[in-house]
Amino acid sequence: MTRILGIDPGSQRTGIGIIDVDGAGRVSHVHHAPLVLLGAEDFPQRLRVLLDGLTAVIATWQPDEVAIEKVFMARNPDSALKLGQARGAAISAVVLRDLPVHEYAAKEVKLAVVGRGSAEKTQIQHMVGIMLNLHGKLQADAADALAVAITHAHVRATAKRLGVSSQLAWSRK
Amino acid sequence: MTRILGIDPGSQRTGIGIIDVDGAGRVSHVHHAPLVLLGAEDFPQRLRVLLDGLTAVIATWQPDEVAIEKVFMARNPDSALKLGQARGAAISAVVLRDLPVHEYAAKEVKLAVVGRGSAEKTQIQHMVGIMLNLHGKLQADAADALAVAITHAHVRATAKRLGVSSQLAWSRK
Repeated sequence: MTRILGIDPGSQRTGIGIIDVDGAGRVSHVHHAPLVLLGAEDFPQRLRVLLDGLTAVIATWQPDEVAIEKVFMARNPDSALKLGQARGAAISAVVLRDLPVHEYAAKEVKLAVVGRGSAEKTQIQHMVGIMLNLHGKLQADAADALAVAITHAHVRATAKRLGVSSQLAWSRK
Repeated sequence: MTRILGIDPGSQRTGIGIIDVDGAGRVSHVHHAPLVLLGAEDFPQRLRVLLDGLTAVIATWQPDEVAIEKVFMARNPDSALKLGQARGAAISAVVLRDLPVHEYAAKEVKLAVVGRGSAEKTQIQHMVGIMLNLHGKLQADAADALAVAITHAHVRATAKRLGVSSQLAWSRK
């Protein structure tokens, strides 16, 4: 059993989703929660809330591997900068714990979860709920975090079948 | 005597500049060096080089306070994202050591160092060299890192004269 932490970084809320994947590539839900970053007094403190929160999540849930969404083109340079800072702090928390980080583009996540690279957000929320046997509506950031974890689980399983490293398997697709 | 670490974050090179400021607001050069992030195998590893490098700089030089440039509008969302990630990792290294971080806009730095908010990069390099009594040409990232440290030193000194916190002093200007 391998535990995967999926992260959907955001400068106001960062989604956290944890799943387990067994040797056959079957996924099961472990935990999901948002890290809410608003309310901190300034931006550096907001990044600290993210760092400390993610560090606590890693300590509590002990993931083996981490998957994070490669950021889609942000609306403008200012929001890209804020998002980049949140992503930088999230990756910092992960690499400080010596965990391997795998990055997936939004399109790869949609393809893995919905089967179409152009799927809508609501379809991801719906499919993640079905795949993980969750009841009730998932919030978008939790769904995205779980979705990138599921994507990594699938890539790993494919890689295992092919007997190659997961990064290689993915690039062959 | 207060030791200030100035950081000029970049996703390929991050400038590091350290100065001391005495009770009268006089600054003196302590150290400067670039953290070169290229060569790391992937982006998360590049952020790790930045985190570990900055953590080592903090452990070695023991700054009391940290100043970092607020990022000017980047050319496009993609470069803003990369720059944001580097900045997020840099701030992470600092807040993890419980050091206070002060942010200054490029315009504030230019005003403090050159006396004009619209100064050119080369004027900053020149003035930083004069203010810190350095011989030879400074590289742009070192000059920017030292410049933001000098800016913070000046803001601190002004704040001290006015008997207010440095953030307050600056916003009154």
